[in-house]
Amino acid sequence: MAVQNRTLLPSQWMETHRGVWRINAGEEQAFTPLGFLGIPPKTDAIAGMDEAAFPFAERSPVLDRAGASGTVIRFPLERDERVYGFGLHFRRLNHRNQVMQLQVDHYGGRDDGRTHASFPFYVTSRGYGVLLNTAKVVTVDVGTSVRRDDPKPPPVRDRNMDRAWDSQPPANSIEFNVPASGVEVIVFGGNQPLDAVRRYNLYCGGGFLPPRWGLGFWHRVPTLYSDEQVEAEVNEFRERGFPLDVVGLEPGWHSKSYPCTFEWDEGRFPNPSAFVKRMDELGVRVNLWENPYVSPESGLYETMEPLSGSHTVWGGLVPDFTMPEAREALSDHRRQEHVVIGVSGYKLDEVDGYDKWLWPHHATFPSGRSGEEMRQTYGIQLQKLTSDLYRTVNRRTYGLVRGSYIGASSLPYALYSDAYDHKTFITALCNCGFSGLLWSPEVRSGADADDWMRRMQTVCFSPMAMLNAWASKTKPWDFPHIADAVRDAMLLRMRFLPYLYSAFARYREDGTPPFRAMPLEGVEGESVADGTLDDTANPYASRAVIERADQYLMGDSVLVAPLFRGETTREVAFPDGAWFDFYTGKHVSHGGVQQVSAPLERIPLFVRDGGIIPLMPEMEHIPKADRNVPLEVRAYGTKDGVFRLYDDDGETFDFERGDCSWTTLRTVGGNGEIEAADRYWFYDPSRFEWKRMTDDA
Amino acid sequence: MAVQNRTLLPSQWMETHRGVWRINAGEEQAFTPLGFLGIPPKTDAIAGMDEAAFPFAERSPVLDRAGASGTVIRFPLERDERVYGFGLHFRRLNHRNQVMQLQVDHYGGRDDGRTHASFPFYVTSRGYGVLLNTAKVVTVDVGTSVRRDDPKPPPVRDRNMDRAWDSQPPANSIEFNVPASGVEVIVFGGNQPLDAVRRYNLYCGGGFLPPRWGLGFWHRVPTLYSDEQVEAEVNEFRERGFPLDVVGLEPGWHSKSYPCTFEWDEGRFPNPSAFVKRMDELGVRVNLWENPYVSPESGLYETMEPLSGSHTVWGGLVPDFTMPEAREALSDHRRQEHVVIGVSGYKLDEVDGYDKWLWPHHATFPSGRSGEEMRQTYGIQLQKLTSDLYRTVNRRTYGLVRGSYIGASSLPYALYSDAYDHKTFITALCNCGFSGLLWSPEVRSGADADDWMRRMQTVCFSPMAMLNAWASKTKPWDFPHIADAVRDAMLLRMRFLPYLYSAFARYREDGTPPFRAMPLEGVEGESVADGTLDDTANPYASRAVIERADQYLMGDSVLVAPLFRGETTREVAFPDGAWFDFYTGKHVSHGGVQQVSAPLERIPLFVRDGGIIPLMPEMEHIPKADRNVPLEVRAYGTKDGVFRLYDDDGETFDFERGDCSWTTLRTVGGNGEIEAADRYWFYDPSRFEWKRMTDDA
Repeated sequence: MAVQNRTLLPSQWMETHRGVWRINAGEEQAFTPLGFLGIPPKTDAIAGMDEAAFPFAERSPVLDRAGASGTVIRFPLERDERVYGFGLHFRRLNHRNQVMQLQVDHYGGRDDGRTHASFPFYVTSRGYGVLLNTAKVVTVDVGTSVRRDDPKPPPVRDRNMDRAWDSQPPANSIEFNVPASGVEVIVFGGNQPLDAVRRYNLYCGGGFLPPRWGLGFWHRVPTLYSDEQVEAEVNEFRERGFPLDVVGLEPGWHSKSYPCTFEWDEGRFPNPSAFVKRMDELGVRVNLWENPYVSPESGLYETMEPLSGSHTVWGGLVPDFTMPEAREALSDHRRQEHVVIGVSGYKLDEVDGYDKWLWPHHATFPSGRSGEEMRQTYGIQLQKLTSDLYRTVNRRTYGLVRGSYIGASSLPYALYSDAYDHKTFITALCNCGFSGLLWSPEVRSGADADDWMRRMQTVCFSPMAMLNAWASKTKPWDFPHIADAVRDAMLLRMRFLPYLYSAFARYREDGTPPFRAMPLEGVEGESVADGTLDDTANPYASRAVIERADQYLMGDSVLVAPLFRGETTREVAFPDGAWFDFYTGKHVSHGGVQQVSAPLERIPLFVRDGGIIPLMPEMEHIPKADRNVPLEVRAYGTKDGVFRLYDDDGETFDFERGDCSWTTLRTVGGNGEIEAADRYWFYDPSRFEWKRMTDDA
Repeated sequence: MAVQNRTLLPSQWMETHRGVWRINAGEEQAFTPLGFLGIPPKTDAIAGMDEAAFPFAERSPVLDRAGASGTVIRFPLERDERVYGFGLHFRRLNHRNQVMQLQVDHYGGRDDGRTHASFPFYVTSRGYGVLLNTAKVVTVDVGTSVRRDDPKPPPVRDRNMDRAWDSQPPANSIEFNVPASGVEVIVFGGNQPLDAVRRYNLYCGGGFLPPRWGLGFWHRVPTLYSDEQVEAEVNEFRERGFPLDVVGLEPGWHSKSYPCTFEWDEGRFPNPSAFVKRMDELGVRVNLWENPYVSPESGLYETMEPLSGSHTVWGGLVPDFTMPEAREALSDHRRQEHVVIGVSGYKLDEVDGYDKWLWPHHATFPSGRSGEEMRQTYGIQLQKLTSDLYRTVNRRTYGLVRGSYIGASSLPYALYSDAYDHKTFITALCNCGFSGLLWSPEVRSGADADDWMRRMQTVCFSPMAMLNAWASKTKPWDFPHIADAVRDAMLLRMRFLPYLYSAFARYREDGTPPFRAMPLEGVEGESVADGTLDDTANPYASRAVIERADQYLMGDSVLVAPLFRGETTREVAFPDGAWFDFYTGKHVSHGGVQQVSAPLERIPLFVRDGGIIPLMPEMEHIPKADRNVPLEVRAYGTKDGVFRLYDDDGETFDFERGDCSWTTLRTVGGNGEIEAADRYWFYDPSRFEWKRMTDDA
């Protein structure tokens, strides 16, 4: 064994960026996710952050061992420390007291570590984060394994007589088991959890800025629709006044799918170029569904054959996209067949699992990468490929991906899943914000009008507002008596565009996630109750934990508290300070937990004291950059506030060369002030109108 | 890499026993489960079995690789081959089309490989079995991973248009991924699945023969009962006429528990020796609950400290029982404190999981065994220890254990779980028979009288008939209006003793499991229906599979088809031939699927044509060997039949030296004949009375 029981002293860590430290624990791995992505950290933005102390100055991490039998490394935890992150999870925020095998796979209904995006990065309530830059399946014991040599072990109790006995005595460390002879560790400092998240995002290249149209409404048509059927459906959106920015084509656009040809079906889409153009004229972008497995009938097959793994998926090749030749082959094909005719992006399906559909961990690949490394990183491989491709034509893209991994912050994708539980969708949305991910709680169908309405509301206050009717064929207006209310929710989404787009611009600029779970806003919101002993349902009297995992912040000022089927009232945990109803401006809370209610047609939205919300008019799609959009600038509460409004062309990467602007909207003593920018692409500041939402009383 | 892509030709396998072949694929592992157990195969019994051809004569297994990156080995599967085994599983019999990580852990509600007894041994519908003798966590792809170099891959289909598209194209091999540089493989031949199961059991030392009293009724008392309370409860059984053979003491007998002292609590049990003696006088044995983690307040602590692992469980030591010193320390203590005063055995709890309670895989142990190897084998370590201990005093034991592994066939334990679903309990019972395990579907409580009755019936037709009231405090008579029916079910269990004990004697003698799933009786009983595509509930139109996993054979002639809460009718799949109602002798079926019904007070039981069932009188406990027990010998159907009735002292291992006898009960042309043995311990053949159950008509 190469290394054993080595304390990783503060002096041994290298501060690579302000508040970011790294160390190689044991041998360097030949392949790492961040190494593969090769995205440079946003060094200047990190340098602009508040100073942060090295979080392990007092208690050092310990490299228990590194060698042929794997790498075991542990980091200290305080007794009351909460642990968030590890990617996309569905049922809880705080992973303390859990063991997880962090494996990219379909989500199977349990937060056991197997999910569409699962990886060794965590942030804690003490404000720092830890990343293990590895593509191996890591097992993590989050404060569960108590070592015999622990100088401060939890007390030993007698279960016979001591009611304080706990089935899980808390350990004061988090232990990682990495099946490799070493691992690179990166620590992100901070004074609060959000700092660590921001540092992680900036280290991974910053958040991404979607094209402006990506924040409009999306609709995926039934799988075998022809160009004419798609066009008719888009026209129906327009005729009925339902907004639509992106139409998604499902597998039927391919001549064959599962595995895919990546070639247009000549029967359903005889003239793809003309079709995409007609869509564009209606203000609608085209997104294409794909899975990455190459059909023997695809023109790409021959090229990909020597560049693919030992196993097949549905009889299709599994290209090794860590190899430049494989990336180029798919990129060239996409560029010629899709990108140049105007296709806006992709839905990258099936990159994650199930185990029983994809290749095994023991599969081999021509680059020498293991099946395990490929399974963990296939999602980011495909994201990077598409992201790079659109960059070559100076057009931004925004798409969907079902699997992701370390380093995805700057990749323009939202996650989704075939799971379909409304409440766990919200928890997924909350969790993504800890780990540089975004979640789309897509709507597919509703059990009834009530369910449909509540799901549509949630989707309209999410990173990607999408109806995916590939199989259900549901239209937004399919429940007639609430059709108007559904349209109103979609139009409200459109009105929020200036607010949302600015939040994404901040994501890019300083790493602040546009959608944030409550612990990132200071609401740990967790109470612990004793479980009742029951010999069949709860034989260990496990404790019940209440988290605030069904509400979240959108941007800096809006608290979203979705209601669920059959509900018109719920509990909301407010961060400190005064909060106001978005719709009426009325004061609702001084912070803390409170019951709120809302009729079926409204999703509860609350605005922070001093919150400024710029709303654009209701529109059927996001207009192009040459339109001068007016704004209603709403001011809530009585405190002074500031909002920074972002503008650019909405489509290209020219903003990276400085072609963008920030406008400061400010309230001072109840009056609205505008610090206009030098240049606008979308807005006309002379048409900004302040609206005071809250009376002084 | 040491080995790559090596075909394991028939000539390279060594036939170690008739129809048993072995090979070392790659390097030998330092520690193996069978090596640790050191139980010699029953060579003569294997030699007495029918000849069996090497199952891979036509298509050889392939050692894909063996070396530092692990061992990958694959075995051929035919397209229609079904795959059973892999230990204890709860939801299906045939594991074809699954990927499982075979890890000993609590059962979490999914057959994903994590369960109380999970290991790489399978038998197939073609009649052979394969064992990988390893204590590592193995991943198995059961016909799921299709290789690119497969000469006969499944057809590639187009999901757009081809309705025969399958989300899981069947692979024609089973692939194992073993995290070690080699693995010993043992193949068990046979002409039908039962042959392979028998060879496996005999190779592992044969099945075990419990003491006769072990097949009576068991009752576990509430956890903090004192000796007086236990005695009062036992007396109540006697007063009410409910049979009882074993009383189980739960954690409260220890002075401290979780972790345990292994020492009697002086308050609740001031005079253990006298208590055990009083129980014995009532015909009741005492069984002690334990978990293996050593409390700092135990007299064993100091001895165990240097013999324990790096991590603690509830603050207790985790002794390394692969070390003889640790085994001796616990055995000596048990012998002095428990065995010599008459304690009959143990319930070995918490040897399996959860992950978050036990030690991590990266824990270290003084013997050099990894945490992973220890987690996989802790159940058999504890079983072996107790089994060996009782052998030193020439007394048989029978107990409960929550975790088990490869090679457990000859260890005198039944498995159980904290799961509590009646139907999955039956599937667990069925599955155990494939892998040399036994399952106790213990009753803890009932949702209502109906549930209680149905669960009690199941338990009375299982390997261990037990009510575990440690927390619920339920008594068998707690639902007054069915109390008589419950007593009748328990008394019927007692009457079956001669039949059951003989079935266990065969388990020991020729490896035939006393409880068998339907595929071991030629009923694959599986039909496949197309799943209906649904975009939220079933987006891949996965197929529905119907198995006969809720019925089983007890011994050779009795088909048990339990009913569940609220049911009085069900479907039963009968093996070929005529079947008769146990209670009335009436003809029920000519084989095939049939609807049957039974009132609440009866569990449906069916007897094969020619079946002979020896029943003893209703008794309140199993009498000692000196009693001359009469028998009612029931004959069912019209075919000639044979039953071999086993007898011995019921308590010691003297039967191994020949102190036992077999009586042949035979029907010829409708007449009963008895071939008496030379010697009896329990029965009086002059008091055997034939009872013809079926009319000639």
